[in-house]
Amino acid sequence: MEKPYVIGIDIGGTNTTFGLVDARGTILDNGLIKTESYPAIEDYVTALAGGIQGMIRQVGGMDLIKGIGIGAPMGNYFSGCIEWAVNLPWKGIIPLAQLLSDKMEGIPVAVTNDANAAAMGEMAYGAARGLKDFIVIALGTGVGSGIVIGGTLVYGHDGFAGELGHVIMRRENGRMCGCGRAGCLEAYTSATGVARTAKELLMTRTDSSLLRTLNPEKITSKDVYEAAIQGDKLSIEIFELTGEILGEAFADFIAFSSPEAIILFGGLTKAGDLILNPIRRSMDEHVLGSYKGKIKLLVSQLNEGDAAILGASALGWEAKQVI
Amino acid sequence: MEKPYVIGIDIGGTNTTFGLVDARGTILDNGLIKTESYPAIEDYVTALAGGIQGMIRQVGGMDLIKGIGIGAPMGNYFSGCIEWAVNLPWKGIIPLAQLLSDKMEGIPVAVTNDANAAAMGEMAYGAARGLKDFIVIALGTGVGSGIVIGGTLVYGHDGFAGELGHVIMRRENGRMCGCGRAGCLEAYTSATGVARTAKELLMTRTDSSLLRTLNPEKITSKDVYEAAIQGDKLSIEIFELTGEILGEAFADFIAFSSPEAIILFGGLTKAGDLILNPIRRSMDEHVLGSYKGKIKLLVSQLNEGDAAILGASALGWEAKQVI
Repeated sequence: MEKPYVIGIDIGGTNTTFGLVDARGTILDNGLIKTESYPAIEDYVTALAGGIQGMIRQVGGMDLIKGIGIGAPMGNYFSGCIEWAVNLPWKGIIPLAQLLSDKMEGIPVAVTNDANAAAMGEMAYGAARGLKDFIVIALGTGVGSGIVIGGTLVYGHDGFAGELGHVIMRRENGRMCGCGRAGCLEAYTSATGVARTAKELLMTRTDSSLLRTLNPEKITSKDVYEAAIQGDKLSIEIFELTGEILGEAFADFIAFSSPEAIILFGGLTKAGDLILNPIRRSMDEHVLGSYKGKIKLLVSQLNEGDAAILGASALGWEAKQVI
Repeated sequence: MEKPYVIGIDIGGTNTTFGLVDARGTILDNGLIKTESYPAIEDYVTALAGGIQGMIRQVGGMDLIKGIGIGAPMGNYFSGCIEWAVNLPWKGIIPLAQLLSDKMEGIPVAVTNDANAAAMGEMAYGAARGLKDFIVIALGTGVGSGIVIGGTLVYGHDGFAGELGHVIMRRENGRMCGCGRAGCLEAYTSATGVARTAKELLMTRTDSSLLRTLNPEKITSKDVYEAAIQGDKLSIEIFELTGEILGEAFADFIAFSSPEAIILFGGLTKAGDLILNPIRRSMDEHVLGSYKGKIKLLVSQLNEGDAAILGASALGWEAKQVI
């Protein structure tokens, strides 16, 4: 009998969440440990393994578990390591798949980054079911991406393909990006980028806006959204500018892999048509003629609270024994 | 016994060349027909089949031929058709693989575009032997590309992936491109783009240059090369500007698929270090930190006269029966 369950683990700087998932993408049980409470990786792995083993016992034991998938910043699928992740407590190269597998009776463990996990989740249980060529763009604090070509996730020669948040969209006077370069897609179209655009427009212009009642240093993309749905023109324009740049970028991505769909994921997608319509318009305006009208723009169908665990769990179905 | 030969066909607007190729990439025999002499596709296919059959008889008959590969503008691998190629005599959608297979005892025929064929050729016989993740950039009259990920050519959902000559490099005041948009990579870094840069610099500047003895409307990339190797500063600068933009573009391509190598192909590569050094410098300057120093820049190892036939022939090894 095919083993019926996988474990998905989502590692963030603050929390690590994990869940027991079946083949239809139902999370049967889940748990949480505080990532930041374990400065030593050995202690972290012990705590994590403990939490998972508890769940597995409940459901009937290790024999029912096909594999474990982990989504983590700088997770490398090829090596099973987390490599120099700046937002996690452990520095250098951490052989996480190996460490966890050792604690879990040698069960297969696969690691990748969060955006790749999101793409796997969409393919296994979400908007990309049945698609073989698509790109997931995760619009959160940063801009991440997971690229699927011919039904396979693109890892690149070193495990780190798909950094589409760091293609350069503005080569002159580009905004500084956290990566140390200027003009990256992420600097404009992440949630943080939207807040920066708000601050810039409020400083350089004089038209009235609901946003003017807020401290410009503290404006968030959520504030911009809330003002926009109340009809605030400046806020609507902020989403238009954001969508414009995303559409320009997507036109270039399409020239690379000609995907069937681009799937948006993450907090900013809550803005709905406020951001989707400008993206569609811009993508259609900028895409090379031969692709026009061929590529769908979709929004993730995964419940945001569950998506990270589901995405990571999708890796578990194809995880291989760590040697 | 594995069949020992394939046929490669390269279709250009003026000439169609074809050759009989063995597994080591030796062209054992070759031939040519004039593409433009056959306004009716049926007549063209008859002439082409005739030429190929003659070669095959010489070598011992159809049983020794594994398949036929065709490189053609707008060749679609999935459909086996040439679709709306502007530089060929036949308009609309031409089911070339089917037509040729029918004339050749049902032998498998595969079609793709020239740049994809070049990538296949590099993988089968050239600089990409043993590589699984690489991008071929063809710098000719236009800029074409063939992308290989995990050992498989990227065709995209519609057969037309890999139009990297048409990513946008200059979003403000970009040069008009043949595709109808502005700022495309091709508009700056094709052989034609190099000639345009020469003309622009000669018009907007006053410094002396060997190029000033030539009619600016007729300057070619070859003229720029010849002046540059004589030490002409303006000409050297033209290659530097061209290499700068290519390096910027490659930095973005790397963020997409993290290839092991980018392989340059086509006429402009004859400029050697004049263009390679600026590309290397710019790529290294612009690439995201995590990729720095990891990606090789290589030049095609295929003899330019043979490369088109060899590239197309590489498709023949994996061509499947047309149904």
